[in-house]
Amino acid sequence: MSEFTTDIAVRYRDLDPLDHVNHAVYASYLEAARTDYLETVLEVAPEEINFVIANLEIDYRRPIVKGDDPEIALWVSGMGDSSCTMAYEIRVGDEIAATAETTMVHVDADAKQPTPMPDETREALETADGVEASA
Amino acid sequence: MSEFTTDIAVRYRDLDPLDHVNHAVYASYLEAARTDYLETVLEVAPEEINFVIANLEIDYRRPIVKGDDPEIALWVSGMGDSSCTMAYEIRVGDEIAATAETTMVHVDADAKQPTPMPDETREALETADGVEASA
Amino acid sequence: MSEFTTDIAVRYRDLDPLDHVNHAVYASYLEAARTDYLETVLEVAPEEINFVIANLEIDYRRPIVKGDDPEIALWVSGMGDSSCTMAYEIRVGDEIAATAETTMVHVDADAKQPTPMPDETREALETADGVEASA
Amino acid sequence: MSEFTTDIAVRYRDLDPLDHVNHAVYASYLEAARTDYLETVLEVAPEEINFVIANLEIDYRRPIVKGDDPEIALWVSGMGDSSCTMAYEIRVGDEIAATAETTMVHVDADAKQPTPMPDETREALETADGVEASA
Repeated sequence: MSEFTTDIAVRYRDLDPLDHVNHAVYASYLEAARTDYLETVLEVAPEEINFVIANLEIDYRRPIVKGDDPEIALWVSGMGDSSCTMAYEIRVGDEIAATAETTMVHVDADAKQPTPMPDETREALETADGVEASA
Repeated sequence: MSEFTTDIAVRYRDLDPLDHVNHAVYASYLEAARTDYLETVLEVAPEEINFVIANLEIDYRRPIVKGDDPEIALWVSGMGDSSCTMAYEIRVGDEIAATAETTMVHVDADAKQPTPMPDETREALETADGVEASA
Repeated sequence: MSEFTTDIAVRYRDLDPLDHVNHAVYASYLEAARTDYLETVLEVAPEEINFVIANLEIDYRRPIVKGDDPEIALWVSGMGDSSCTMAYEIRVGDEIAATAETTMVHVDADAKQPTPMPDETREALETADGVEASA
Repeated sequence: MSEFTTDIAVRYRDLDPLDHVNHAVYASYLEAARTDYLETVLEVAPEEINFVIANLEIDYRRPIVKGDDPEIALWVSGMGDSSCTMAYEIRVGDEIAATAETTMVHVDADAKQPTPMPDETREALETADGVEASA
């Protein structure tokens, strides 16, 4: 398995009164990495990506502070008919600041209902770098 | 069990290109409710609350849009020596828009290490409205 | 002149490492009030409001902290063919925390170019509560 | 005059329902550039920078969208006893997406009152790259 990574630049606005990156901002970091990944792998503009987030889980291991240079690694960890699960590591140097998992569901753009993803979307996700070998 | 609730006013800035409240913003809604709760139950200012988030899980059931009036209900669902787990429902009218759970860890303010919470913090959390009867 | 006001609930995520509401968040508070105002006065959904912000100025007078209950007052302070200027006060109790002004330009939804606003939009803005008598 | 520049990575969360970077987020972009600048020029950690924003003005010229690679250029455009004015250009390719100006005031960390800035802060700001020759 190869993995896909995105560098994040910590902004002052990401910090909260504890001088850490606020825990909710991690979800936006994951989203920045995920949209980069989907644009790259699916070769579509972000407004044509018909996935919505159904589940998010983040496990926080150490704080991220201003001056850190976080990197997000992500890979597809599971595929369903209309859903796709991705796993993430947020790394700072050689430490893991957080691990996370998201499940997104493919929706029909008009009906906003879950719908099986097109074959070419599935194939792109299944064969992309960053997909677990066993997936 | 009584429960504690907080009303949320959806801001335009909470929306993303899908015209929905962005999924990461739900974590900020939970945090707004949780800080209200801790200030009320523990009777302390937010800067004296020595808890950090160790785990977050959100299950998204339906979108929240501008014009909705979300309400967050929360309760303590588990207590450890240095940790406290809280459960949440984000409601819009009589629908559940999302459910969530957070685990927070009590840290020593100086050493930033997990440390058992003081007895009065524990008692306040265990006896507050919004604590599961069986906890 | 009557004025239009919106209450803001300060969220923990609005705070920055100085324990104040971050200065950029004031712009989101103004936007929350402005979209409320436009929906009320123009009687349209937010996605049908074809205005974009051309200029923003904020004068910060005192910090806003958690526990404050800010109120935004706003009124139309100037009208052009395709533009509308609004003035704001952010009040906390009987103090003014900030004053601000925004100029927004009416754009054609397709061409994304400035275009004169429809007569009914203009009339609604000119006759609404919250419009300066001299405007 | 040399100028100081910072690259910004547009995140999905920066976008609003118009598919543009929300206008309030520009203020966070400016802040990211300004804190980078102050850390570099003053050689201090962000928590030791005792400046607060007194005034912000942004002039929006064209939208920023996902896929753009904005660069912020900034320079000191005016110095007072306790205040410092900075000017900014947000550039996308060879276009100017926005211009801006901020005035920040040096405050005493304890009393939170405006206070003349120390000589070494003033000298660092007056002699830094990015200071207007005439300032």
